[in-house]
Amino acid sequence: MRSCVSRSGAANGLCHVFLRHTSASLLVTENADSDVRRDLEHFMSRLVKDGDPAWSHSMEGPDDMPAHIRSVLTCSELTLPVRDGRLVLGTWQGVYLWEHRHRPHRRFVDVTVIGAH
Amino acid sequence: MRSCVSRSGAANGLCHVFLRHTSASLLVTENADSDVRRDLEHFMSRLVKDGDPAWSHSMEGPDDMPAHIRSVLTCSELTLPVRDGRLVLGTWQGVYLWEHRHRPHRRFVDVTVIGAH
Amino acid sequence: MRSCVSRSGAANGLCHVFLRHTSASLLVTENADSDVRRDLEHFMSRLVKDGDPAWSHSMEGPDDMPAHIRSVLTCSELTLPVRDGRLVLGTWQGVYLWEHRHRPHRRFVDVTVIGAH
Repeated sequence: MRSCVSRSGAANGLCHVFLRHTSASLLVTENADSDVRRDLEHFMSRLVKDGDPAWSHSMEGPDDMPAHIRSVLTCSELTLPVRDGRLVLGTWQGVYLWEHRHRPHRRFVDVTVIGAH
Repeated sequence: MRSCVSRSGAANGLCHVFLRHTSASLLVTENADSDVRRDLEHFMSRLVKDGDPAWSHSMEGPDDMPAHIRSVLTCSELTLPVRDGRLVLGTWQGVYLWEHRHRPHRRFVDVTVIGAH
Repeated sequence: MRSCVSRSGAANGLCHVFLRHTSASLLVTENADSDVRRDLEHFMSRLVKDGDPAWSHSMEGPDDMPAHIRSVLTCSELTLPVRDGRLVLGTWQGVYLWEHRHRPHRRFVDVTVIGAH
């Protein structure tokens, strides 16, 4: 995102990121203590259980439907302000890609910068 | 959304959709297996129960407050990238209007396209 | 937001609000009956419990990690349409800042207006 903003030449405007997947999320959360991301993972795994017999959709395994639900409860796309050619984030904010499947996946995002040049 | 993008003449930019309601959502999820949407509905009906005695707000019936909560846990507005005059979506992504009330409602959205012409 | 839109001089476009914090949210919900916001608070306090022994991250007290989780389950940023120089909202929609910590905090937002002048 940072390199897209600087390459765009936009001084002020918006930077949009879109995740092309339905079993991962874009996450904005606390960036200082990695326990926060661990606790988030733990909360989600308790709220949306792998292998719940209620899921009809389980073609790709017990973590298939839970990944879709976790994606819907969080964000697939994100817009951040651009000021003076830089992304705006609060001091304690970090942007993360949150994988909801157990096996590693390659994930693609589309970044769009809009603003005054 | 597709017709708004093509009528706008924008080649690259963003397409924003805003839902004017607090008891329905805009949903981006898996588009191939309709069981996914059924399982999402089932998950939500278990998480946010109709007629829960905890709700003070029940003027319009037992599905009134749950619909507001489900709306807050999901999305009321959505931004998608536009490339070469077309909406960008991942292969397995679909956009849906998710009604949270039991009785059918007419729902209105505002679509805004921003970009280079 | 309203004053940013009118000062911007934009007639049509988008207004984006970004919250620089990870323990509060931007909320779009029913604006007529304040019981809705009370029920939302009640739902969240039941779903994400203060002082849950599962949380590793509790440096700032029993409401520290729950505030981060509630922030992730809701919105940190919000885009609204601008038409004829005014923000578009449905009749029953209101925009609120939702504080997830018990003690009062000062919260900062960045507002960006993009559109045709």
